[in-house]
Amino acid sequence: MAKKKAATTRRTTTKASKKTTHKAAPRPAKKTASKKASSKAGSRKAAAKKVAKKAAAKRSTASKPSSARRPKPGKMVYYFGAKGTEGDSSMRELIGGKGGNLAEMTSIGLPVPPGFTITTETCGAYYQAGKRLPHGLMNEVHKHVSTLQKETGKVFGDKKNPLLVSVRSGAAVSMPGMMDTILNLGLNDESVEALAEATGNRRFAYDAYRRLLNMFGDVVLGVEHRAFEAAFDGLKRRLGAADDTDVPEAGIVELCELYKDVIKRHSSQDFPQNPFKQLELAIEAVFRSWNADRAITYRRLSGIAGLIGTAVNVQSMVFGNMGDDSGTGVAFTRDPSTGKNIFYGEFLINAQGEDVVAGIRTPQHVSAMAKWNKKVYDQLLKIKTKLEKHYREMQDIEFTIERGTLYMLQTRSGKRTGAAAVKISCDMVKEHLIDEKEALLRIPAGDLTQLLLPSFDPKAKTIATALTTGLPASPGAAVGRPAFTADEAVERAHAGEKVILVRKETSPEDVDGMHSAVGILTSTGGMTSHAAVVARGWGKCCVAGASEITINTEKGTFTVAGQVFGRQDTISIDGTSGELFAGSISTIEPTLSGDFAKIMRWADKYRTMGVRTNADSPADAKRAREFGAQGIGLTRTEHMFFGDQRIRIMREMILADSIESREAALEKLLPMQREDFVGIFRAMKGLPVTVRLLDPPLHEFLPHEAKAQEEMAAVMRVPVKTIKARVAMLHESNPMLGHRGCRLAVTYPEILRMQVRAIVEATIECAAERVKALPEIMVPLVGTRAELAMLRAQIEETMAEVKAEMEYKSRLDIKIGTMIEIPRAALTADEVAEVADFFSFGTNDLTQLTFGYSRDDINTFLPDYLKQGLLPIDPFQSLDITGVGQLVEMGTAKGRATKPELKVGICGEHGGDPASVHFCHAIGLDYVSCSPFRVPIARLAAAQAAIRGERGGGDGGDGGDGSDGGGA
Amino acid sequence: MAKKKAATTRRTTTKASKKTTHKAAPRPAKKTASKKASSKAGSRKAAAKKVAKKAAAKRSTASKPSSARRPKPGKMVYYFGAKGTEGDSSMRELIGGKGGNLAEMTSIGLPVPPGFTITTETCGAYYQAGKRLPHGLMNEVHKHVSTLQKETGKVFGDKKNPLLVSVRSGAAVSMPGMMDTILNLGLNDESVEALAEATGNRRFAYDAYRRLLNMFGDVVLGVEHRAFEAAFDGLKRRLGAADDTDVPEAGIVELCELYKDVIKRHSSQDFPQNPFKQLELAIEAVFRSWNADRAITYRRLSGIAGLIGTAVNVQSMVFGNMGDDSGTGVAFTRDPSTGKNIFYGEFLINAQGEDVVAGIRTPQHVSAMAKWNKKVYDQLLKIKTKLEKHYREMQDIEFTIERGTLYMLQTRSGKRTGAAAVKISCDMVKEHLIDEKEALLRIPAGDLTQLLLPSFDPKAKTIATALTTGLPASPGAAVGRPAFTADEAVERAHAGEKVILVRKETSPEDVDGMHSAVGILTSTGGMTSHAAVVARGWGKCCVAGASEITINTEKGTFTVAGQVFGRQDTISIDGTSGELFAGSISTIEPTLSGDFAKIMRWADKYRTMGVRTNADSPADAKRAREFGAQGIGLTRTEHMFFGDQRIRIMREMILADSIESREAALEKLLPMQREDFVGIFRAMKGLPVTVRLLDPPLHEFLPHEAKAQEEMAAVMRVPVKTIKARVAMLHESNPMLGHRGCRLAVTYPEILRMQVRAIVEATIECAAERVKALPEIMVPLVGTRAELAMLRAQIEETMAEVKAEMEYKSRLDIKIGTMIEIPRAALTADEVAEVADFFSFGTNDLTQLTFGYSRDDINTFLPDYLKQGLLPIDPFQSLDITGVGQLVEMGTAKGRATKPELKVGICGEHGGDPASVHFCHAIGLDYVSCSPFRVPIARLAAAQAAIRGERGGGDGGDGGDGSDGGGA
Repeated sequence: MAKKKAATTRRTTTKASKKTTHKAAPRPAKKTASKKASSKAGSRKAAAKKVAKKAAAKRSTASKPSSARRPKPGKMVYYFGAKGTEGDSSMRELIGGKGGNLAEMTSIGLPVPPGFTITTETCGAYYQAGKRLPHGLMNEVHKHVSTLQKETGKVFGDKKNPLLVSVRSGAAVSMPGMMDTILNLGLNDESVEALAEATGNRRFAYDAYRRLLNMFGDVVLGVEHRAFEAAFDGLKRRLGAADDTDVPEAGIVELCELYKDVIKRHSSQDFPQNPFKQLELAIEAVFRSWNADRAITYRRLSGIAGLIGTAVNVQSMVFGNMGDDSGTGVAFTRDPSTGKNIFYGEFLINAQGEDVVAGIRTPQHVSAMAKWNKKVYDQLLKIKTKLEKHYREMQDIEFTIERGTLYMLQTRSGKRTGAAAVKISCDMVKEHLIDEKEALLRIPAGDLTQLLLPSFDPKAKTIATALTTGLPASPGAAVGRPAFTADEAVERAHAGEKVILVRKETSPEDVDGMHSAVGILTSTGGMTSHAAVVARGWGKCCVAGASEITINTEKGTFTVAGQVFGRQDTISIDGTSGELFAGSISTIEPTLSGDFAKIMRWADKYRTMGVRTNADSPADAKRAREFGAQGIGLTRTEHMFFGDQRIRIMREMILADSIESREAALEKLLPMQREDFVGIFRAMKGLPVTVRLLDPPLHEFLPHEAKAQEEMAAVMRVPVKTIKARVAMLHESNPMLGHRGCRLAVTYPEILRMQVRAIVEATIECAAERVKALPEIMVPLVGTRAELAMLRAQIEETMAEVKAEMEYKSRLDIKIGTMIEIPRAALTADEVAEVADFFSFGTNDLTQLTFGYSRDDINTFLPDYLKQGLLPIDPFQSLDITGVGQLVEMGTAKGRATKPELKVGICGEHGGDPASVHFCHAIGLDYVSCSPFRVPIARLAAAQAAIRGERGGGDGGDGGDGSDGGGA
Repeated sequence: MAKKKAATTRRTTTKASKKTTHKAAPRPAKKTASKKASSKAGSRKAAAKKVAKKAAAKRSTASKPSSARRPKPGKMVYYFGAKGTEGDSSMRELIGGKGGNLAEMTSIGLPVPPGFTITTETCGAYYQAGKRLPHGLMNEVHKHVSTLQKETGKVFGDKKNPLLVSVRSGAAVSMPGMMDTILNLGLNDESVEALAEATGNRRFAYDAYRRLLNMFGDVVLGVEHRAFEAAFDGLKRRLGAADDTDVPEAGIVELCELYKDVIKRHSSQDFPQNPFKQLELAIEAVFRSWNADRAITYRRLSGIAGLIGTAVNVQSMVFGNMGDDSGTGVAFTRDPSTGKNIFYGEFLINAQGEDVVAGIRTPQHVSAMAKWNKKVYDQLLKIKTKLEKHYREMQDIEFTIERGTLYMLQTRSGKRTGAAAVKISCDMVKEHLIDEKEALLRIPAGDLTQLLLPSFDPKAKTIATALTTGLPASPGAAVGRPAFTADEAVERAHAGEKVILVRKETSPEDVDGMHSAVGILTSTGGMTSHAAVVARGWGKCCVAGASEITINTEKGTFTVAGQVFGRQDTISIDGTSGELFAGSISTIEPTLSGDFAKIMRWADKYRTMGVRTNADSPADAKRAREFGAQGIGLTRTEHMFFGDQRIRIMREMILADSIESREAALEKLLPMQREDFVGIFRAMKGLPVTVRLLDPPLHEFLPHEAKAQEEMAAVMRVPVKTIKARVAMLHESNPMLGHRGCRLAVTYPEILRMQVRAIVEATIECAAERVKALPEIMVPLVGTRAELAMLRAQIEETMAEVKAEMEYKSRLDIKIGTMIEIPRAALTADEVAEVADFFSFGTNDLTQLTFGYSRDDINTFLPDYLKQGLLPIDPFQSLDITGVGQLVEMGTAKGRATKPELKVGICGEHGGDPASVHFCHAIGLDYVSCSPFRVPIARLAAAQAAIRGERGGGDGGDGGDGSDGGGA
């Protein structure tokens, strides 16, 4: 039972998490499969191997049978029904998710139309044999059809009481793009008459037949769907029928003839009248669809690998459209939106499943069934409860009532919102269905964002149509009017207007405007562009890289999808989906429930890795602390220099042409910088604060546009040409690879000294107030041991100087370490560690350099790369474990080999990505650091990693790993 | 004897190679010393370890004694003289190069003034004891002085027959910056009178005394030299003496008193009258000088590490200035400029060694000695021959004749030019002094450049003063007048003028102008800037990054050192030294001797690694083949698109807004591209040609300046704004990390198809002419297996297509591989190798990404880095073995683990750098590829690596590893 539970709990997936899930969870599986060569080379390290190995182990666990049932080697077909059920849901690798659940439901006594499943291994054998059905398969199928005939009392292709079946694909993981469904298989020119007689409804029987002909022709014989449509349209015109339902019985009968002609004409073969021939061809079509372009693309994009093929489910047909005593419905065992424990779903009388999905008729709430057929409704309620108890998980079910008899057609874990995931998890612990660890594993960590930020009302969003979709750079929802410059945004926001800053891209000069805006929209730049990083830090909504919008800053307009928007037009942006809408869409403010707090408490109880935050101001620090951050992993000091007064002094310093005048400017910055630190230290009292020394190239502090340069010249009373000259002098072809980071400290040691002085003075000032400050000085962009050794000596010298000046007698507890963000630093981490107290992996820059991708320019080719499956995911969003992760792991191992007590963390954007957090846990990092709003995500992800680790399931990713079975 | 020979042969160094030597050779030593932590981390691979280990082994070999003499543990002083010589030149690690050679010369019976050497270990002990002379040292010194007294019959500090000694430092490696020499030690107020009496020359004696006072006061007691100068000047003024020599005996006697006062005043102590006190203080001063700032800086800059200290040589004085029967001289046993076997040197009658060096008097040619003292001259000739036979190497000697008696004061390997190195090596093989392998090892590979390119006449250069010094970007010498744009250069060169293209930096648009110019001078850009790379490829002289020149392109002038140069001013640039001169300096054209050919033959006989070339045109290919290239390792196809006609079509393609119009433009490029390949294939008939697909970002093909954009618009008949818009669209923040390399092929597969088509069509065309073409298609900038897999499929598809179209029936022998230049590709080389036939490490980009340095911008901080010793050398010049090398080694190992037959080479600029070539050999690469003019260097370096490898001396670098002993 324990095993079964473990298998089922992996199925948790909500709609919102689908994307994350496909990205994150299956990736380790891919690694295992494709990485043999890698380990061959002997280069991968223990932990990364462990991750892959555990993923493999987990998969084999999942496919291990319960004690009752075992897969038999070579067995190709598994029956489910009263005549004996041979599979269960733990065998999903072999019989697919759908097949497993059908067998499982049958086993626990639910009314499931009997049938059988052809294994995924058989599909593999089909391809191994050069696309031929394996020898003996059809014999097996015959045998199982014969069992089915016995159980149903019907006969396949019979002229009196024909057995009809559906044929569906069903892999171990839900996978759009494969063949979906063929219904009513077994009908032919003779049995259709028998069906007409048996049901007393000739129109129904021929309608079933024409559906088979259409689906079979399309899917199995490759006849284009529109050929059938054309035939139907012609008939309707001839009969003067506006709608399908207007066509009388005779018309439908004729239509079947027309369809047979279409098949003959387009495929040069007759529709096979032999039902076994139909079945054989349909099975082969399902196998073929496993390698259809769409399916391959889907697997590639979702990182699904290591599966051998799809299973085929053959199930006896039941009909919800046999009259008003029949019906069909879909339901969730709890509310997937709120998580409340209420039965939630819809049903339609006299309809087939596809009618509910198609939305032609408006379905009723499932509770209305009570009035329609109390007995059936009560039965369904009992089944609902039984399923939840059995699976210990919220279920998404499909059912059909044929002439008053209830049949269950499908069950699977239900998708849910982040809020629902939290509530269901907590409730199920209360209901003793699952334990705390299981509860934590059930919540896709990334979905917690939904609980922390405002979001658009899903109902309102359904009605609106997105003008375009950019990158979901920073989640949340924002409604406002466009502002086209930072100054304008500040001004209008000051006047009380809600503005969305619309820029081609943002730069540090824009931060004031960004802060004033309710949201940010850029037309270029990726997930880690300046706009995205800053916005995420603030929890401010941002859509980046919306390349379809064209901005005219001078006119104050932007154009998208042929529409022009100006300063007076309200727009809405969804930072969670990347969508841009015209007009105002209503938003929902987040409310943090007690359940959320409970989940966080549990997470802290089980996680072993620390979670810090990236924060540059006391306000950010305070908020992050409220979200549970255990310190600051990254304070970027450059953001502190962009304030109105400070940027002026900063520019003075940059224009200085002697050390003396540079030092004079720095002297003015010192007290400001010190106060910044005092504020942050107070907010983080008693917790470590990693301060990164100045990192960006100096030209980032100078204006690059003529007008701004003139303004600066006027303010600073220097000729414009002086400014232009300095901008030109500081210009770099590739600033990312230029004069920045510790390279600045090497050439301008006085800047480093001022910053260190500010840190030490702030520390001592805090000590006087009895505030324990624990700064850690981080030197950025180190590539060699020599750099850090030299700068460390300067830092220590300054520390000693300030200590002496201020007559501070106690020990200064200030660590000195470095950011590992240059590949060479990771490669030579053994040397660098000799002079470092800690490492913090700057995975943004490390990703840029390891891939040779500029995050500012990646949008020129990233979309092509993702579309063509050359990259499974934007590596700036989720850590590239194979490449960049290899360096992180190597750097950690080498660093600790030199200095076992070395503290190692990660402070790139990946610190808030669940899959990356999992990897960091697996390789034994001390902490991850992420933006304040992602702290809860990191806490939960770290707990999940710890729990999976102890359970032996070491794969990365969210709580869910894709839904099971699937299909309509 | 074999061991001794091995030790001595390592000493070969020529003046020109000094820089290379200091950079390259000692580096591995540094690695060994500082890399323990690295191997501790278990991360370094076998080969790199081997390099370090062998370097260590070699060092211990060098310090191993000959069978006759052995260092005794704890022994601090080694005597040399008739009373017993305890050291020899194999003990240089212990007694320094100078001490070793003094002992060695004594042993073989040469007339060396006796003395003794205090070991380097004693210096180490001095530092270990907190800068105190080790216990017992002065006892030992006393004992050895006593032996010295017995041998010379003189007594230290004696009032009658005083023993005088010199004290000199002398480490294992020549090292400027340490204390040089104190002469005449042992003189005091009493012994000076005895010396006067013994020599019958009181002025001489007091002059010797005042020299001692001056040197001792300066070097030992820290009195500034100018204090002594001031005293001397005052005296001369008082005596009305214009020159030192005008001061009479009494004045010199008085000067000694004045000097003693100076010492007293400035050091607050008396000049020690006790000679043993003098000696003790002098020894300590030598030890102290080991850690003088200058010495530390020198060691850091030269990468000298792992030495424990300096030795101290104490030697009895002889005087060349005792009258006209005395004299002194320096000589080379062969001509160091041409290598001819003639005795070559200078001598001065009645002078001390420093007088020869100081250049106050003009010395005579050494052959003039024959007339002066035939006996002594004959004796010197015999000694010369004996020394060469003994050391089997050209020697640089110093000698003194004291009253008709010859004394040898120093011998060491002589520095020589590249041409001399080649001739001496060949001659010595003929003379049976050395074997072929030894001959190869003796020639610093980098010095071969001097033989291949024109150079400035050294005599002419001595007279001129450089206006400024930039980077020696491409060797050679050029004289011409400045041209400030590429067009101007083309025009004026066409009119027959010799022009030097002077640009801030060059871009691909400038190639025509660069080609027309005789030399290139840029004010920005590093050793691997566009100008440098292109110039080296052509063997054209280039000075890059001459940051002190300011160019005014509009006016057609540049300013440097306060002088303005226009179109009519002739300038000279030296690409070997980086110097810029005003006016015309005479050049010497290279003539390749038969000896050169012989050396190359020998090199090919012993090397095991292939040498290819980087060539983009049939002419380059032909020349490289003449230089011995065994194929092309890199053909950059983009250079082919900059011709006048082609750039227009290229731009058409870039402006195209549909695949169709892009394909139409490509269609026009196809025949041109095909003809390029046909030409190259013909030139390289039968040899492999690696063709790299289009690499640079497309915006490099568009003009960026307004005027050029207008011209382009006119030519192409499109609005300027179209061009501006495309330029803006293609603009990237960091083009190095942008849309280039295989990323272009992913988004524009039609470009790749055109290029592959051209390659295949050219191959088949050649086959028709019976020219065997062996193209290898190289995909640039691959970071993931997926990229290469997809592009490989497209390449194969196109190959098959063309083959079918052209009805070519034979097998197409075209390999498909990739450049490994992205760190991730090296890290995941096991995966990438699955779809690659070969790897070629692009170490330029790999260095950029591994360090995070943009080679276009590195000049903003590289000078500081080199100056402060943060980098031992520009990593774009010589491969960073620890970091970048680690990736090269890892990539090779991982790649071959997947595919043992994988062909692996290197095609970055490092392929022509001797130290890098050595590393490539050590890790087992199949070939290196470098610019045509560096092919001979690579052939020789590869041979040296192979020979050292088999001899167990696996350190990288040139033939020499710094001169021995050293000192004046």
